[in-house]
Amino acid sequence: METVRLGILGMGTVASGLINIIEFNNSKITGTLNKELSVSKVLVKSLDKKRNVNLPQEVYTTDPYEVINDENSHIIVELIGGINPAFEYIKAALNNKKHVVTANKALIATHGEELEELAEKNQVKLMYEASVAGGIPIINTMTDNLCSNEITSIIGIINGTTNYILTQMTENGLEYEQAVKNAQALGFAEADPSSDVEGDDAAYKLTILSTIAFGQRINVKDVPKEGITKISKEDISYAKELGYNIKLLASASRDGNEIELRVHPAFVPENHPLSTVKNEYNAVYLKGNAVGELMLYGKGAGSLPTGSAVLGDVINIVKAVSAASSLSPKKENRYVVANKAYKQYYIRFEVIDKPGVLAHIANIFGKNDISLASVVQRQKNGDETAPLVFITHEAPRSKIDAALAEIKNYEKVTKIASIIMVENFK
Amino acid sequence: METVRLGILGMGTVASGLINIIEFNNSKITGTLNKELSVSKVLVKSLDKKRNVNLPQEVYTTDPYEVINDENSHIIVELIGGINPAFEYIKAALNNKKHVVTANKALIATHGEELEELAEKNQVKLMYEASVAGGIPIINTMTDNLCSNEITSIIGIINGTTNYILTQMTENGLEYEQAVKNAQALGFAEADPSSDVEGDDAAYKLTILSTIAFGQRINVKDVPKEGITKISKEDISYAKELGYNIKLLASASRDGNEIELRVHPAFVPENHPLSTVKNEYNAVYLKGNAVGELMLYGKGAGSLPTGSAVLGDVINIVKAVSAASSLSPKKENRYVVANKAYKQYYIRFEVIDKPGVLAHIANIFGKNDISLASVVQRQKNGDETAPLVFITHEAPRSKIDAALAEIKNYEKVTKIASIIMVENFK
Repeated sequence: METVRLGILGMGTVASGLINIIEFNNSKITGTLNKELSVSKVLVKSLDKKRNVNLPQEVYTTDPYEVINDENSHIIVELIGGINPAFEYIKAALNNKKHVVTANKALIATHGEELEELAEKNQVKLMYEASVAGGIPIINTMTDNLCSNEITSIIGIINGTTNYILTQMTENGLEYEQAVKNAQALGFAEADPSSDVEGDDAAYKLTILSTIAFGQRINVKDVPKEGITKISKEDISYAKELGYNIKLLASASRDGNEIELRVHPAFVPENHPLSTVKNEYNAVYLKGNAVGELMLYGKGAGSLPTGSAVLGDVINIVKAVSAASSLSPKKENRYVVANKAYKQYYIRFEVIDKPGVLAHIANIFGKNDISLASVVQRQKNGDETAPLVFITHEAPRSKIDAALAEIKNYEKVTKIASIIMVENFK
Repeated sequence: METVRLGILGMGTVASGLINIIEFNNSKITGTLNKELSVSKVLVKSLDKKRNVNLPQEVYTTDPYEVINDENSHIIVELIGGINPAFEYIKAALNNKKHVVTANKALIATHGEELEELAEKNQVKLMYEASVAGGIPIINTMTDNLCSNEITSIIGIINGTTNYILTQMTENGLEYEQAVKNAQALGFAEADPSSDVEGDDAAYKLTILSTIAFGQRINVKDVPKEGITKISKEDISYAKELGYNIKLLASASRDGNEIELRVHPAFVPENHPLSTVKNEYNAVYLKGNAVGELMLYGKGAGSLPTGSAVLGDVINIVKAVSAASSLSPKKENRYVVANKAYKQYYIRFEVIDKPGVLAHIANIFGKNDISLASVVQRQKNGDETAPLVFITHEAPRSKIDAALAEIKNYEKVTKIASIIMVENFK
């Protein structure tokens, strides 16, 4: 089987995520591509450091040009971050006719135009899905699936640090400073959080998204920025009282021949999907003139989600440059179809309203190894019966049915009115 | 400029959406592809019918094989629906070495395997993004961006009719029968709604999604189905009381070598993103072993959203089969960057707690053409001041600032504590 080799610049959390996914999802990847993926060279700061990835020592080098000029590498993945020296490295790779995948938002937002022209000149691909919103495939969704749409607005929660801080302030009534400390303790905020809390990180990402959405090069300087440092407990409680959540939004909209861009805290109605985006999660909500409203929600950072986005770009490049792209991956029967329905259940009975009925039914559930999460008992229905509602803990449907068969024979139960599964997303 | 010609089978709502998008987004599409898209032939039932699309009369035909065998057509788009005769038509098109795009969930769920093998044998593409969840690009997201992930679970709200009915029952306390009548009146439910309310439509879609997710051909008969016809007002009110919404879920999950599939009503925790999916909207929530949680939300049906998905497949085919795919679309300066910030605003003052203060401030807003949406007045802060909170109606930020400059000079205002934009998603 043909092998596609990656040269990786940088060995941080995203790089280790990428390398680990290539290893543990190898069969899925090769099954899709009919090609092997392997890592030929990795730029590191030090050769001695112990690493949590499974690569032979000889792939590591401290010389970037050993990666960039490696004749065995087809695709260079830049994961150093920052503008210099990443900018020089990517230009060199493109000029070497290597495809480039990067997660570098600052670089793409600042020099994306020059790099895209260079890729075009060299007839290679430059992809940067991971530069915005981690694992959420918002860039490829706009460039591929929505490329027949004129995008009229994009509103994103695309900075996990600030969203975590605001969520903690909202749910635990914390003041800003305390929420920042907690975020730092949990690794959701840097020791110096300014690029997140002042909105710079979100502004870079919005610059990339709006350049794609509007087909016009946007300058990060065109994005007015307001961070979350002035948001107080009071404002958050007034927001709640008035039916809103405060979120840091990165928004871009078009009206006629004008576009407006902005990173700023905003009141978001509590019934809007963006209001359910909590803690470190990200989401991008957009409107296209054909698709209408669309929202993508997921993990905006982290080793595996961001590695997944990088690998998605790598695979899209391999598909685009190989005839194999027209083959659909083989379907093999790897799994058997089961029907255990091991879940929580909501069960509503109608019972004769007499003492001991609840205890008797609860007892039958217990005998069948079904424990109960909640019970609601109501007054009479008007006749001598009353509704009795249970939510069970997780149990296989077979045991639920066994218990219900027994309960059915209990003369105080006039009706098993409903059984509905509870989806707890475990 | 080279032209890509489409032959379209069927002239219903999705076809007219597709044709209209090609017309009104023509510059965006050609800018992306460096190719023209045009419609060469359309299969219709009657040649005389008046249509809401702008095509020359000679493209219409009542003979399917005039479309399928048209030498000018590169891609055949099947939008008849149902298994026969669509199955025969698509087989004929693939055997003619034409790429095929279809929105036909019943056909793909039932005969997808045979059709994919036929496409592979003829080295052409078969794409069906529009067959599941309308404008939501869930299929391409799984096959492209997530194809390095092992998908462990998919939970979808993929039938708009039932979601509309359940939302109406929840929000307006309607009984099932009344909600169905309303849905029918608004065109969200068919005269005979059984294929939606019994779960058949969702089962077809889940079959397609899980076949892709698990890389294993799933048979629609393997999907246990339970519809929403037995859901009562009582169950919905108990669900609310216990912190849940009832949704019709299409779920597929993998545990070791077992997979479970199911279409069924379920309790969904009210703080989960799927709980905010209301009325005719769809969403698919999935977990991948690299990307983690991901949710896509949008319009699951309709002329333009579904037409957008069909066109996305068409464009992906054109990109995949042409070198032009490696070129990034030209960026031209079509728009000027403005900064009107014409929005609603939340403004919190601290004021001396005396009669007439609220009226005086409200009056200054009025003089600046700013009308007020809500006001919250609170008791004293402990000193002689009190918080005073306004949410304005929409106004340009410049007018807000002008009003605030005046209000600042009002001696009863001790502080303008905060100004935060309200995002109302208009």
